[in-house]
Amino acid sequence: MSEHPGYHDHRDDYLKRLRRIEGQVRGLQRMVTDDVYCIDILTQVSAVKSALQSVSVGLVQDHLGHCVQDAVTGAAEGDEAGRARAEAKVAEASAAITRLLKS
Amino acid sequence: MSEHPGYHDHRDDYLKRLRRIEGQVRGLQRMVTDDVYCIDILTQVSAVKSALQSVSVGLVQDHLGHCVQDAVTGAAEGDEAGRARAEAKVAEASAAITRLLKS
Amino acid sequence: MSEHPGYHDHRDDYLKRLRRIEGQVRGLQRMVTDDVYCIDILTQVSAVKSALQSVSVGLVQDHLGHCVQDAVTGAAEGDEAGRARAEAKVAEASAAITRLLKS
Amino acid sequence: MSEHPGYHDHRDDYLKRLRRIEGQVRGLQRMVTDDVYCIDILTQVSAVKSALQSVSVGLVQDHLGHCVQDAVTGAAEGDEAGRARAEAKVAEASAAITRLLKS
Repeated sequence: MSEHPGYHDHRDDYLKRLRRIEGQVRGLQRMVTDDVYCIDILTQVSAVKSALQSVSVGLVQDHLGHCVQDAVTGAAEGDEAGRARAEAKVAEASAAITRLLKS
Repeated sequence: MSEHPGYHDHRDDYLKRLRRIEGQVRGLQRMVTDDVYCIDILTQVSAVKSALQSVSVGLVQDHLGHCVQDAVTGAAEGDEAGRARAEAKVAEASAAITRLLKS
Repeated sequence: MSEHPGYHDHRDDYLKRLRRIEGQVRGLQRMVTDDVYCIDILTQVSAVKSALQSVSVGLVQDHLGHCVQDAVTGAAEGDEAGRARAEAKVAEASAAITRLLKS
Repeated sequence: MSEHPGYHDHRDDYLKRLRRIEGQVRGLQRMVTDDVYCIDILTQVSAVKSALQSVSVGLVQDHLGHCVQDAVTGAAEGDEAGRARAEAKVAEASAAITRLLKS
């Protein structure tokens, strides 16, 4: 198992997206302070949720790709435990997807 | 129609919640910088989405309550146009709910 | 308070949409029986969820419109309790929207 | 690549769940026919959506497990193309998850 998480290679991209989301949340605070019309705030909340969603799908994809790579590398080296580990990780990722769908 | 948006009376509460969400998003950035395990980040993303969701449902409720109040006040004063305006606002809120469900 | 639910006037439309959704769910059963490719089934599940979502948003809109009408009619007749009843119904609808967002 | 889809071993379980969902959708039709209260219908719609959600997460998990297995088997047999194929499948599954999150 490699030492870095699956998203490591895209870390700067994730940080950039999370900083933009932080800016959007501060924008929401300004809208509330300025008594902006409710529906316009809701539209902006939907935009922030979509941006977070997109970050989370990217993390899931990176994580799963990483699991597959580990499993394949393990198999090529005759590491029988690798398959079980990869399956456990897929189950764990599925549980995280369920939490995302419910949040 | 009153001059303030429906959430006006709970403005401080919304600002407090949005500042907490901003802090959670900064926490996500730290997690990415620190190479925290993917699944733990996803769990935290789900928490932020739930917090945003809860803000948006509060805004919808305040907005609808406000619409009903306006319609009732208008009706009591014999303002016939008030009913049409309230219906238009309910349609507008339903469209915002649809966007939330898809985001 | 009128005796019919808010969706009463669109009842045939809702029944038609729910029958179509029933057909889509039977289609999913056929896909599973025929060993259709996973991702194609998931795409079809997303379509059924969207169709259900659209039914639920329609019901919310009809229900809220009905609440506003009741409140307005009550107010025009000097029914002071009507406003409290309308507010209770808006709170109840917001709780239903929260359940939809989490499902 | 094996000939059966990833969910093949759980086919009967999925069929049973989809038949139950079909029954729930017919129940919704009866509720509408009987003029049942809006909010109670919405609660039932949320239940059907959750049931569908749970089917889809199961399918995603079976599919990903299958992909990992194929990749591992391929790697053990020195099939270099297997890794690229597994990665393509993970990307495809991530796209399906995105559609689920938006539906």
